[in-house]
Amino acid sequence: MDYLAEKFKRLGIDNAPGQETRQKTENMEIRGEKLAGPEVNFSHGDVDAHIPTPGSLELFIEGFKKGGCVAYTEYRGGASIRENVAAKLAKFTGAPIDPDNELIITPGTQGALFLALGCLVGRGDKVAIVEPDYFDNRKLVEFFEGELIPVKLDYLGQDSCAGVNLPALEESFKQGVKLFLFSNPNNPTGVIYSQHEIEIIAALAKKYNVILMVDELYSRQIFDNHPYTHLRALANKSDNMLTIMGPSKTESLSGFRLGTAFGAKWIIDRMEKLQAIVTLRAPGYSQHVLRCWFDEPEGWLADRIAQHQKIRDDLVDVVRSHEGCKVRKTDGGSYIFPSLPPMDVSISSFAKIVRQLTGVTITPGTEFGPQFTHSFRVNFSQNHNDAIDAVKRVMTIMERYRCK
Amino acid sequence: MDYLAEKFKRLGIDNAPGQETRQKTENMEIRGEKLAGPEVNFSHGDVDAHIPTPGSLELFIEGFKKGGCVAYTEYRGGASIRENVAAKLAKFTGAPIDPDNELIITPGTQGALFLALGCLVGRGDKVAIVEPDYFDNRKLVEFFEGELIPVKLDYLGQDSCAGVNLPALEESFKQGVKLFLFSNPNNPTGVIYSQHEIEIIAALAKKYNVILMVDELYSRQIFDNHPYTHLRALANKSDNMLTIMGPSKTESLSGFRLGTAFGAKWIIDRMEKLQAIVTLRAPGYSQHVLRCWFDEPEGWLADRIAQHQKIRDDLVDVVRSHEGCKVRKTDGGSYIFPSLPPMDVSISSFAKIVRQLTGVTITPGTEFGPQFTHSFRVNFSQNHNDAIDAVKRVMTIMERYRCK
Repeated sequence: MDYLAEKFKRLGIDNAPGQETRQKTENMEIRGEKLAGPEVNFSHGDVDAHIPTPGSLELFIEGFKKGGCVAYTEYRGGASIRENVAAKLAKFTGAPIDPDNELIITPGTQGALFLALGCLVGRGDKVAIVEPDYFDNRKLVEFFEGELIPVKLDYLGQDSCAGVNLPALEESFKQGVKLFLFSNPNNPTGVIYSQHEIEIIAALAKKYNVILMVDELYSRQIFDNHPYTHLRALANKSDNMLTIMGPSKTESLSGFRLGTAFGAKWIIDRMEKLQAIVTLRAPGYSQHVLRCWFDEPEGWLADRIAQHQKIRDDLVDVVRSHEGCKVRKTDGGSYIFPSLPPMDVSISSFAKIVRQLTGVTITPGTEFGPQFTHSFRVNFSQNHNDAIDAVKRVMTIMERYRCK
Repeated sequence: MDYLAEKFKRLGIDNAPGQETRQKTENMEIRGEKLAGPEVNFSHGDVDAHIPTPGSLELFIEGFKKGGCVAYTEYRGGASIRENVAAKLAKFTGAPIDPDNELIITPGTQGALFLALGCLVGRGDKVAIVEPDYFDNRKLVEFFEGELIPVKLDYLGQDSCAGVNLPALEESFKQGVKLFLFSNPNNPTGVIYSQHEIEIIAALAKKYNVILMVDELYSRQIFDNHPYTHLRALANKSDNMLTIMGPSKTESLSGFRLGTAFGAKWIIDRMEKLQAIVTLRAPGYSQHVLRCWFDEPEGWLADRIAQHQKIRDDLVDVVRSHEGCKVRKTDGGSYIFPSLPPMDVSISSFAKIVRQLTGVTITPGTEFGPQFTHSFRVNFSQNHNDAIDAVKRVMTIMERYRCK
């Protein structure tokens, strides 16, 4: 088998969120009867329960009607859209962005992640990745043949910070890490890095000349007025850094495929060169939709946050009512990452069993790091009552498989 | 400089179509006054002159209103859309397509090209590429660190076939080529491969076990009832092949970012794995627009072809009226690739001078192969009168720089 074949064999998506309909049925040890209730897909948010930002479709239609000037933009995105978005992102993150040189519009934040890693990770380059973190981070490092250096996040042991192991991070930097990539709020745990953590990360990056990349996809959806520190707003931030954001989550605009990356000119320049051969550009008419981003009706964001906060609170109560189950309360974003007691089946089998017995889709913890053999991720951007009912059923199934 | 930096230095886009607004102004030897007339951008089609397929926007709106089931599809595209599109493409190309296993929907055909080459081209793999052909083919091979084996196309010397050098092609296959990639109709010349050429290509691929990839992006827009042979419909076709098509050109749907690839299951499986980390999926709501593809109103396609055929005929006359200028009449697609007599400036400088003196954007031939130092490409999917006027001005400028 050639090395490409091996690479693609490792690049598994069978357990990836959203692909469950393509899973092959296996011999599973099914215990008990099916549990009736609403089918809930916790692998992503439900944009029917939390609908796209008001005005988004109208902007798309306006973009379509404007025609060729919107359909065919520069590869990095249309100039007037970049100007619009750069100003809003600069205000939100607390540091200026040059729309001509420091911003690129991408097909989703996934597009931004791919382009950035394609520009920064070569064969054998060491990349520090938090565990747990967004599952594709690991896959991207593997695809570009970098060397993954995992850094642990003690998310269950803390409540005033994210819990990243800073001595281990420094040790990895000493070993010659080129890039450190992390999501904040963290996916899948929902924890937010403290100001102290962010400042240490910035200082270490300067000291060891490490490129920093922070995925702030969920940074608008913060609960309980939790403090949030934008890495790029720090006085001592590195010049070699990139921030990623997009309107696919809190704003429910995923169907338009929009994301942004902003930061060092040399990285953005490379990303545009790569985008030119990957997809040419983010979808032209969709780009126009970015005009409503950060410009939602008065109270819209606060209301959306309040709705999600209530769902979070109820789900956390359900999980914690089962003996031996642990979950940290989400600081920001739409995920919880509960930890279960020992069961008679693996977590990936458990996810398949749950799907068969309840119609509920969860994501096995092992997608986020090989050691998360007792955890699963839930995207709770769902209909409130359906989500509670679904997680109750998941926990009922868990009890059937709990080790005696 | 590390090898990634070198790779991105080579991956130039400064002269790439669509990027002209980012070009730096240089010291150019300007001869004579500006020529007034409509600004025409020949680097891509004008979707305001040839508007998107009727019903496309309405389908997008319908998709948006359907909500989550359209926004979040499997990575390879929504199941019902794949079924719809597979049936239409099978009918058009003359061979069946299994919608579950043999088709993927991508962000533009650019997305399909990138995913396919990412799946098939590893370090040092030999890839045969036609010269001239779509400029990104070469860049993609370079990005994935394959070895490019150019195969000449004698497009000016033929009129009953494309003019691909079949002995040279066989020689490259003998040398261990893994993949042969070509566009048909050819971009930038508009020539169509004869049935004989396609049959020989298929036979050689079988004999030497070469993977075939054909970009049929323009295969619906054929002039003068020119015969067209779909490689995949041949009885002796290889099992290891892929066809690429999309609605961005003839149908003017580029702003939705849609493409398709169909062929061998193992290639499609790999492409989906890669798409999962590149952009997750083609834009969800846009996918719904594919329902109007191949389902246009009666007479729509014939009318569009007739309009383009007239523009082609008039442009060819303009070019041929200048001494020493050659151009082959387009068999299919919206490109002409005229060849100019020796000038006092390089073709890339000429393109910049033309832009400054006339407001007309053309693409230098060197984007399509280093030897095309006297050619430029025109996408003539434009307003008829503007296109004629613009090419006349380009030729007037050419006369100012013709070698004495």
